[in-house]
Amino acid sequence: MSDAIQTAVIGVTGYAGAELARLLLHHPRLKGTPPVFAGRVDERDAERGGIPLGEIHPELTDSRGSGDLRLKPFSWELLSDLDVQVLFLATPHEQSRSWVPEALARGIRVIDLSGAWRLKEAANRAVYAFEDEGSAKAEEIQQQAVYGMPELHRRAIAGAKLVANPGCYATSVILALKPLVAAGLLDTEYGIIADSKSGVSGAGKAPTPKTHFMYAADNLSAYGVFTHRHTGELLEQISIGADSIIFTPHLLPIPRGILSTIYVKFRTPQKRAAVLHAYRAFLGQSPMVRLHEHGLPQIQHVVRTNYADIGFQLSPDGSRAVIVSCLDNLLKGASSQAVQNLNVMLGWEESEGLE
Amino acid sequence: MSDAIQTAVIGVTGYAGAELARLLLHHPRLKGTPPVFAGRVDERDAERGGIPLGEIHPELTDSRGSGDLRLKPFSWELLSDLDVQVLFLATPHEQSRSWVPEALARGIRVIDLSGAWRLKEAANRAVYAFEDEGSAKAEEIQQQAVYGMPELHRRAIAGAKLVANPGCYATSVILALKPLVAAGLLDTEYGIIADSKSGVSGAGKAPTPKTHFMYAADNLSAYGVFTHRHTGELLEQISIGADSIIFTPHLLPIPRGILSTIYVKFRTPQKRAAVLHAYRAFLGQSPMVRLHEHGLPQIQHVVRTNYADIGFQLSPDGSRAVIVSCLDNLLKGASSQAVQNLNVMLGWEESEGLE
Amino acid sequence: MSDAIQTAVIGVTGYAGAELARLLLHHPRLKGTPPVFAGRVDERDAERGGIPLGEIHPELTDSRGSGDLRLKPFSWELLSDLDVQVLFLATPHEQSRSWVPEALARGIRVIDLSGAWRLKEAANRAVYAFEDEGSAKAEEIQQQAVYGMPELHRRAIAGAKLVANPGCYATSVILALKPLVAAGLLDTEYGIIADSKSGVSGAGKAPTPKTHFMYAADNLSAYGVFTHRHTGELLEQISIGADSIIFTPHLLPIPRGILSTIYVKFRTPQKRAAVLHAYRAFLGQSPMVRLHEHGLPQIQHVVRTNYADIGFQLSPDGSRAVIVSCLDNLLKGASSQAVQNLNVMLGWEESEGLE
Amino acid sequence: MSDAIQTAVIGVTGYAGAELARLLLHHPRLKGTPPVFAGRVDERDAERGGIPLGEIHPELTDSRGSGDLRLKPFSWELLSDLDVQVLFLATPHEQSRSWVPEALARGIRVIDLSGAWRLKEAANRAVYAFEDEGSAKAEEIQQQAVYGMPELHRRAIAGAKLVANPGCYATSVILALKPLVAAGLLDTEYGIIADSKSGVSGAGKAPTPKTHFMYAADNLSAYGVFTHRHTGELLEQISIGADSIIFTPHLLPIPRGILSTIYVKFRTPQKRAAVLHAYRAFLGQSPMVRLHEHGLPQIQHVVRTNYADIGFQLSPDGSRAVIVSCLDNLLKGASSQAVQNLNVMLGWEESEGLE
Repeated sequence: MSDAIQTAVIGVTGYAGAELARLLLHHPRLKGTPPVFAGRVDERDAERGGIPLGEIHPELTDSRGSGDLRLKPFSWELLSDLDVQVLFLATPHEQSRSWVPEALARGIRVIDLSGAWRLKEAANRAVYAFEDEGSAKAEEIQQQAVYGMPELHRRAIAGAKLVANPGCYATSVILALKPLVAAGLLDTEYGIIADSKSGVSGAGKAPTPKTHFMYAADNLSAYGVFTHRHTGELLEQISIGADSIIFTPHLLPIPRGILSTIYVKFRTPQKRAAVLHAYRAFLGQSPMVRLHEHGLPQIQHVVRTNYADIGFQLSPDGSRAVIVSCLDNLLKGASSQAVQNLNVMLGWEESEGLE
Repeated sequence: MSDAIQTAVIGVTGYAGAELARLLLHHPRLKGTPPVFAGRVDERDAERGGIPLGEIHPELTDSRGSGDLRLKPFSWELLSDLDVQVLFLATPHEQSRSWVPEALARGIRVIDLSGAWRLKEAANRAVYAFEDEGSAKAEEIQQQAVYGMPELHRRAIAGAKLVANPGCYATSVILALKPLVAAGLLDTEYGIIADSKSGVSGAGKAPTPKTHFMYAADNLSAYGVFTHRHTGELLEQISIGADSIIFTPHLLPIPRGILSTIYVKFRTPQKRAAVLHAYRAFLGQSPMVRLHEHGLPQIQHVVRTNYADIGFQLSPDGSRAVIVSCLDNLLKGASSQAVQNLNVMLGWEESEGLE
Repeated sequence: MSDAIQTAVIGVTGYAGAELARLLLHHPRLKGTPPVFAGRVDERDAERGGIPLGEIHPELTDSRGSGDLRLKPFSWELLSDLDVQVLFLATPHEQSRSWVPEALARGIRVIDLSGAWRLKEAANRAVYAFEDEGSAKAEEIQQQAVYGMPELHRRAIAGAKLVANPGCYATSVILALKPLVAAGLLDTEYGIIADSKSGVSGAGKAPTPKTHFMYAADNLSAYGVFTHRHTGELLEQISIGADSIIFTPHLLPIPRGILSTIYVKFRTPQKRAAVLHAYRAFLGQSPMVRLHEHGLPQIQHVVRTNYADIGFQLSPDGSRAVIVSCLDNLLKGASSQAVQNLNVMLGWEESEGLE
Repeated sequence: MSDAIQTAVIGVTGYAGAELARLLLHHPRLKGTPPVFAGRVDERDAERGGIPLGEIHPELTDSRGSGDLRLKPFSWELLSDLDVQVLFLATPHEQSRSWVPEALARGIRVIDLSGAWRLKEAANRAVYAFEDEGSAKAEEIQQQAVYGMPELHRRAIAGAKLVANPGCYATSVILALKPLVAAGLLDTEYGIIADSKSGVSGAGKAPTPKTHFMYAADNLSAYGVFTHRHTGELLEQISIGADSIIFTPHLLPIPRGILSTIYVKFRTPQKRAAVLHAYRAFLGQSPMVRLHEHGLPQIQHVVRTNYADIGFQLSPDGSRAVIVSCLDNLLKGASSQAVQNLNVMLGWEESEGLE
């Protein structure tokens, strides 16, 4: 097909990388042009042409084998030779900071799943302590970066060279709040509470004391209170002041899924229909968000789906609401949002390969 | 021993009843006078003198057998014959409503673990829809009932005929808030958020769609938003108005444990030391509450213990706090709090048999 | 399309029924002719044309809604009117016993997921105590039934009127053993041990004491020792005597997945290559079974896939082997095997809609 | 008390060490003489007299604090100064190999929870590859070591200088089999299958890919097939040949507990009463083993208890049996068995502090 697009993925070994690979391998527009997988590969594996994907992620193989798909030794030449047009980075923050400039210089569009380029404000980035913070080059690239939430920035994403894919917690909270803020319903000065709970895959693949089964199982713990680095994304994307939201993440004893319980006060008491209307007005064209007209979503509704689900309950007097927002942290919270961004960037149907 | 106390337990078959039995059987003051266990027993079991406790709860037996302990057919005569002085009711609300009057009439002191007698205000009791609501008899008994949280009502419990043992969620929230309200630190008019999460044992032993493993496992769901019946306990015990607190319970995919994340605003910005001081001033004489001077408690700290654990984190400007309160819903949230009340009622050390 | 096939599903409300619906709705050969879903529907729902599928299984809906798909009130006329050619029964054993004769009489081919028609030998059926056991009609139908494991009976299934879809445990054990028995490698007289472990969905959707989260979680229990009704399937399909195999099922604290650990003795000591050869010879044309050439499969490899995975380890002297066989009890152990049978019955690619 | 015994524990930081500390701190005979906890401590902690136990294991503290209990910097002088008589080693195998000679030379009796000294036969020890294997000193100490299973070696343990506390899997299998072998009931030449399943705490506290929540949760995997190092203990203690037993461990998605399903053939068909009699004859004086006269034990029966539970089911013809043996791997599989050994060594009631 003349319009075949060559993609590449760096960081396929992690949880989000594996889901991204699965989505891209089954994407109808990428049939016949599977992504290039590249990364650090030791000499012995390099000699055999890279590590077969099925050795890294057995679930990615089918009965016929996954054929020639291999994690190849990364080099910029490899990407050039294969004429890669879109590069997915599912890499640590620091790595994304240092690789993005080179990719852009080579004319490759980038969808970065890390936190490297999400934040416009230096104050909000402070928590990351990037090495190149403040450099002219970094500042220039930051200016080009588009926050990759199509529900908010569809048009800018379409033309973007660099898309900063949102954080998983941030996605669940922003999608629940932005429609109400945009409609002018919320008393944001009063303050918003976002009490979020995430499965263990959100903590990454590295074995640590907190990802040990004995720590996480049969437990629940709050962490990063007043200090979690996704807070900056909330402030910038919802356009509220730093004192206007308290975000508390918790570690759930489940593999995947996020549920955020969000507490808001309206400027004036609301009826259910008006709030539903605000959501529909904002999200009506957004295929990957499902509004629960009755009842509240729960984690089982969204795990292993590419959707974010939102529902709410009004207080009896209509002055307050409890909003519940759920998604799969590895999908709409990471990889499927990245594919959604790809679709928007290339002018494809936004939900292509995601339903 | 001349001061031997005869206790009785109705409702040993449930989760809280089993824990209560375990605590009473090991209580140093009750050595030699184990509680009487009574309840509904079919004819065949009645003929063999009741159901051996080990058949109901294998974990209550030891290698030597639990001997003569049996669940006997209930009758008031049985309690009279054995000279029962304190009766524990681990029974459904309606059953507690109808049995308590008779027990009190017979001069038996009662510790009721249900929600039957916890609420002073008729409006707060509406959610229970008690059949005898509004009757003079019920009103008279309600006046005598003491809310069984020793940290708040130690003196009244000591002399009480009827102790209404608190709800599990309510215990976790009240213990976290009352010390700060008592110290006058909180801006209660601003509003408080209590986002609580409980293990499945809190939903009881009856097999239902929501206690099915396939519903609860790998899931998280909010329920009873703005309508949960423990809310009334919060209002009455913390002494705040109905609009001043939003309480949202969630069902956690773990067997037991509650963690409440509570969001408060201070009247004026506070320093950590002042908040610690308020907690210490209120809870200093309370052996069953542990204050985390550093860090936050988590569910694994309290499961299978009789403690409630409390910790908090101040916002950078000191104007807000996130408080985390944990307990085991079957212990400090039910049975061990009942034993704590027993200790207070009988003038024993408050923590006896609980450490 | 002239060769459009109309299918129907009775029993969509259960776990296997839901997975079956999902598979059929996405089957490439059934695009445009979704299955008819029918069953017991109360009057009020009947009046609105049945229950929307999305109300029963929210995960079956997409953002655009699942449209007109409804669980309709069952009648034979409904099936006739819609010209249903293949009927899936995901119903209790007794219901399948009584409905199959009528369906066959009406010329509808049936794939029955229950245990109603799996067993040729009356002795093996005794455990089911079917009401019509021994009747001429039942005997006649039983003779027509084909055990629906394509890896063993591909040809007979292709022409079958009635396919008896195998039990979940039985599938995991038979697929592991049949290739070695067929190759004459096993000393079956010595005896075989099949120690199987299944997730809770295998126990069905009805809330019972054993499906209660508090029973299943953090637990493991053996049950049905020497008496489980899947044993008959093993005897008949592997063609061994009743004393030649001991099958012990266990309840695992996970939602889904079966792992069977199987212990065999060879007639003469074997090398790994010879055993691999026997598996390849038997399963080479079977797309839904994956042989692990190295290492052993585990439950995470197969959950939410349509495959059965098999691996083994030889004893140092080659006289014995430990075989590990895994599958998803709701998929290859039930619904995806049913779709595999559909594919074979209709002459389609065996793995169509399953990879 | 004149007969006060001073104990010490090396290795309190691990899971078994924490349980051992808990048991010793509550042991009635050790009231007033808590164990000394010693190990590697960095300089800063050494300066403050060691690490408070409550910082390492919050669950070991009570509301009053655990007072002066600290993990102190280890030195042999410390043990001498405090006149330590019994030393518990909850340390890695290699460390136990190197420390035991010194302890014995200093006249300290040792209970070693590692695998360092459990195996009499060099062939069975090969899997450990001890550095000092074959040295005269190691051989001399090995001769003195007594396998610390009181049910088998009560008398020898009473006089032992060095007790090698059994492996967790081995305990569950040996207790189930030894009574039947001792009674001459088993056809051991035919072969025994032990299919064992253990919770994740058995894999230790170090974060590794296999103890990661994402690997263990919702999964089941077999490992160490034909090669697990506990196999040697089975061979030596049950007194059977290397080809007579196949032992297969599996990793269960639960924190703690072992269930072994064991398959045996009798020399001649047996009746249930005869098998029960064999168990009672062997275990009648063993307070820490509970025989299930009816039904089978399951993991929930034993978790957080100090018991091993055993039950069995005969085949219809009485020629075979399936035995189910359960215990808590951290308790009867490690720390409570160590305390049981302590009791036997000091002539105390065997179950003291364990019921």
